[in-house]
Amino acid sequence: MSEAREFELNPVLERDTTHVIDLPLCRVLLMEDALFPWLILVPRQHGLREFHDVIEQDAMQLHKEIALTSQSLLDLTGAYKINVAALGNMVPQLHVHVIARNEDDEAWPNPVWASGLAVPYTGRVRAGRVELLQEAITEELDG
Amino acid sequence: MSEAREFELNPVLERDTTHVIDLPLCRVLLMEDALFPWLILVPRQHGLREFHDVIEQDAMQLHKEIALTSQSLLDLTGAYKINVAALGNMVPQLHVHVIARNEDDEAWPNPVWASGLAVPYTGRVRAGRVELLQEAITEELDG
Repeated sequence: MSEAREFELNPVLERDTTHVIDLPLCRVLLMEDALFPWLILVPRQHGLREFHDVIEQDAMQLHKEIALTSQSLLDLTGAYKINVAALGNMVPQLHVHVIARNEDDEAWPNPVWASGLAVPYTGRVRAGRVELLQEAITEELDG
Repeated sequence: MSEAREFELNPVLERDTTHVIDLPLCRVLLMEDALFPWLILVPRQHGLREFHDVIEQDAMQLHKEIALTSQSLLDLTGAYKINVAALGNMVPQLHVHVIARNEDDEAWPNPVWASGLAVPYTGRVRAGRVELLQEAITEELDG
């Protein structure tokens, strides 16, 4: 008899992010790096490791949630480009980076992961950012 | 009256890759870097720039083709991890990197884009790699 195991967020993701909102499939997190508007989407299912571990029935929803969060970042920041990536070399739990990029940002045109140390948010800025993201994502959901 | 414009591969992708196979949605290319088993998927549609530019009706097929090419790379290489990414900071045409990674590869655990210069294939190795990939992808398609 199989028993579905509950979703648990990887402790590194827990440490390095702030919760923004739960969508039907994914938990949306704000990455603790004030240099980039950077979301992380984690499908709330146990045992996913690779992008292709998402079953076909959930693929459309994952795509929708990547599109929704990308559009929310564009609405908020007017970014030039969105980077989408599922790497997972260091954190095995499947998580999808959705990052707003601009031609004058700290890492441009390189990927953000090579940019060196992350810059933490101050508490007030982090809370404000999370609130704006919640509003933008909710508007996109309703729109 | 609207006219569908034909798909054309971006000249930088044309220069830096070798054609492997055309799937229903994407052209599959081998990246010219012998350091990593590295495929690039380009949806054969005009004007796509962002991952979320792929319309909902094609999202499932894109997911299938990412899964199919990921599995083919795993079959061929026994890789530890697959990296999937749509960045596009330098080449604006939407293209999805699907890269087989190992704990002893040149860039591990960092993303491949920070590893410095690419190492070109010799002609014989490139041709052999393309043939193996065509076989592995065709087997996955039929399987």
